[in-house]
Amino acid sequence: MSDKTSSPLEQSRALTEYWSPRVIAEVNDLYIKVAKLKGEFTWHSHDDSDEMFMILEGDLQMELEDRTVALAKGDVYVVPKGVLHNPVAQQECLVMLFERKDTLHTGTVRSNRSRSIAEQLASFAGQ
Amino acid sequence: MSDKTSSPLEQSRALTEYWSPRVIAEVNDLYIKVAKLKGEFTWHSHDDSDEMFMILEGDLQMELEDRTVALAKGDVYVVPKGVLHNPVAQQECLVMLFERKDTLHTGTVRSNRSRSIAEQLASFAGQ
Repeated sequence: MSDKTSSPLEQSRALTEYWSPRVIAEVNDLYIKVAKLKGEFTWHSHDDSDEMFMILEGDLQMELEDRTVALAKGDVYVVPKGVLHNPVAQQECLVMLFERKDTLHTGTVRSNRSRSIAEQLASFAGQ
Repeated sequence: MSDKTSSPLEQSRALTEYWSPRVIAEVNDLYIKVAKLKGEFTWHSHDDSDEMFMILEGDLQMELEDRTVALAKGDVYVVPKGVLHNPVAQQECLVMLFERKDTLHTGTVRSNRSRSIAEQLASFAGQ
């Protein structure tokens, strides 16, 4: 998987399901993922890993316990490990994510939004 | 450093020196850096870490021993650990990099292009 070129914006545009990340590359023990977001996710934290968001298109409100961080196209934001957060996209938003390979994207919260790593590794159509 | 928003494109545009990466954020044991590239770097490898490049502006030719990978704006490419590579930018190119915190950006090669981690962590003017 490592030795190819990825196009996060194009790959995120090709996603058909909201809040269902797909792995596009790996760097050491991190997966690089893309996701298409709309609406509110779920409050969660990752106790063992920071999580990085990069906004590829649209806007994202990162709700934290004490404030909300507004993110626009091109912005990078790191949620430190253990910090409760809830991503909210009023309109469709495309993001690139960096998470430890063993991190569940819903953190310690299991919901119908949870996608296994196997699901996140599923090939893109046509790739 | 983690708990702020970064703008890699703007931060890379603000750089005044070519081939001198600056750290803009951290995710676990990785530094996220930006750099302004022009010309040819130097052949090197990182024996202990993959290295990820994301092209923010311009084009980059990643020379490998057996081929050259052409990267355009928005592309992501991971050089696996141990793989010799030489980034070449015919025109000015802005990139975002992910490297292990203890990785020297010139790999096992020391040259006048080498910048210490302390230099890479130096604050941006005005930030």
